[in-house]
Amino acid sequence: MKAAVLFKTGELLTLVDNLVAPELISGQVKVDIIYTGLCHSQLMEVKGLRGEDKYLPHLLGHEAVAKVKEIGPQVTKVQVGDIVVLGWIKGEGLDAPGGIYSYQGTKINAGGVTTFSQESIVSENRVVKLPAGIPYKLAILLGCALPTGAGLVLNQLKPQHNAKIAVFGLGGIGLSALITARLFKPNMLIAVDIEPKKLELAGALGATHCINAQDENYLEQIVELTQGGCDYTIEAGGTCSSIEDAFTAVKEHGGQCIFASHPEEGATIQLEPHAFHRGKQIMGSWGGSSHPDTDIPKLVELYNEHKLPFEKLLSDSYSLDEINQALQDLDERKITRALIAVNPQLDPDNG
Amino acid sequence: MKAAVLFKTGELLTLVDNLVAPELISGQVKVDIIYTGLCHSQLMEVKGLRGEDKYLPHLLGHEAVAKVKEIGPQVTKVQVGDIVVLGWIKGEGLDAPGGIYSYQGTKINAGGVTTFSQESIVSENRVVKLPAGIPYKLAILLGCALPTGAGLVLNQLKPQHNAKIAVFGLGGIGLSALITARLFKPNMLIAVDIEPKKLELAGALGATHCINAQDENYLEQIVELTQGGCDYTIEAGGTCSSIEDAFTAVKEHGGQCIFASHPEEGATIQLEPHAFHRGKQIMGSWGGSSHPDTDIPKLVELYNEHKLPFEKLLSDSYSLDEINQALQDLDERKITRALIAVNPQLDPDNG
Repeated sequence: MKAAVLFKTGELLTLVDNLVAPELISGQVKVDIIYTGLCHSQLMEVKGLRGEDKYLPHLLGHEAVAKVKEIGPQVTKVQVGDIVVLGWIKGEGLDAPGGIYSYQGTKINAGGVTTFSQESIVSENRVVKLPAGIPYKLAILLGCALPTGAGLVLNQLKPQHNAKIAVFGLGGIGLSALITARLFKPNMLIAVDIEPKKLELAGALGATHCINAQDENYLEQIVELTQGGCDYTIEAGGTCSSIEDAFTAVKEHGGQCIFASHPEEGATIQLEPHAFHRGKQIMGSWGGSSHPDTDIPKLVELYNEHKLPFEKLLSDSYSLDEINQALQDLDERKITRALIAVNPQLDPDNG
Repeated sequence: MKAAVLFKTGELLTLVDNLVAPELISGQVKVDIIYTGLCHSQLMEVKGLRGEDKYLPHLLGHEAVAKVKEIGPQVTKVQVGDIVVLGWIKGEGLDAPGGIYSYQGTKINAGGVTTFSQESIVSENRVVKLPAGIPYKLAILLGCALPTGAGLVLNQLKPQHNAKIAVFGLGGIGLSALITARLFKPNMLIAVDIEPKKLELAGALGATHCINAQDENYLEQIVELTQGGCDYTIEAGGTCSSIEDAFTAVKEHGGQCIFASHPEEGATIQLEPHAFHRGKQIMGSWGGSSHPDTDIPKLVELYNEHKLPFEKLLSDSYSLDEINQALQDLDERKITRALIAVNPQLDPDNG
């Protein structure tokens, strides 16, 4: 089968045609990947910005929609033929290791979930049956961007109504957070990015103000607009300076900054201790504190009720052969969330 | 009257003999200072590490026990003759400006509370009547160290029983936090400082382990001892690196670091964003979120019940004339909390 393999960090992925999968062991599920998404995390992995990579060569990708092809011993959560969401956030079920594949005699590693291949062997606790009502293409967002972006609003921030909220960084996670924050009827919903196209999209999705972070005084603009700072800032810009800016932009005496970015290994954020004493708060997020088995159905319900229009978040489609182009477009901030069509013929809505 | 005046940052305080106080205005209270404490904050002010000082020359000091001598218009909280605690944390009552004094024709400024003088004009909301049962000398601790150190445990952390707690920096605030944390029956109560004498005192006050922060691997020692990090760390070491270390020493998945230090203006703490994602938390403290009017009586009650032995926190006595020596000893970390006797003849227990 075909797969995109990372042989060396800092280089392109290598498309190979004849990757061989092993037999399933306890807790593993073999699937045909239908569509996969592409996240900033993979870009960091490919660039080697996640610290030393001890697993090379290996597969990657952590959000997809797939069809179950075979189940390993002791798997009870899904059956052959089920359409499932794959994601990196652990849910119910056995926690199995990834498969060890081979390619021309070379061992190819893989974690508990990988998605950049026609077939994949994943751990039972990384699959959730796809609830009814949602197109397969959109379901890839349920593996990472939505549980993280919507989750950090629904499970962590729980913003009060009528609040002043700003979202820094309008990729898949930031936009997911933005459409979810809108449900809390904010007084202001400020979108921040450096790409005019993304700001425009945020405006269409309900942002009340759009601010370009390339404006030299953009933080002053936010502080002035909100008369002293935001009640909540949500950060998904990918860099330390973006986290620092989001912390700066919250008000004193109770303003909360939550960040989703995973900057490169070893990087640090620099924060003023006095800002903490004046009552600013900051927290991180591990997948939006989402529980995939209960939260994915909730998100689909919100979609079906037309409350979370996440069909707007997918920007561009690629084939698996074009995956390096997709990575490059993501790196150049041209796209929000790419869709990689791996086995689109398995989607009844396709064509 | 006699007072210690800061004429220029980076220099010693000047003892002057004939400072002249103005008439009282609305909300002001004139007191005779009996004893005052000395806090790291004043050391920072004197050294000029609080940013540009726009108020020079000025009085300073923010914790004392005093006797009310005169009350200004509209003051209802205290009466002439009352013994009061003075502190920097705002409580009930009018928020009046400090007095503008004069010395040989020069205007000497003062904030809403200052204490390094025989008399002082303070704002009504910075005085609380001293509850019965506590010696005057100890009462100076109720103005800053105890509401902050005990407050951040009682009002902010509220630690669970049986927790692993470490206190970084054993000055007045750190030791106040330590004796308060002990009330929550911790599984471990680790004291951290670079002064063997302070570590010894912490041991006598109930620390289960004492660790010298000058040991190169002292953070590894704490992580090993706690098998992965503390449930809570309380920081009062005064520096950014001490805050960073206290954050490092909390466990992932719910460990909380609270810090009281106010490092010099413009300094920043450098934290790893991934540590937040892995569930470490950090927060600042504004006077331990204490409400002086309700919290000072509570602390005195705990003292009277022999639960908070804060008589152990006072280390050395000085006269007002010796205040520069006291500042130097504090700077050299020789003392925990100094007592400056200003009008000790007003203390019935004295002599």
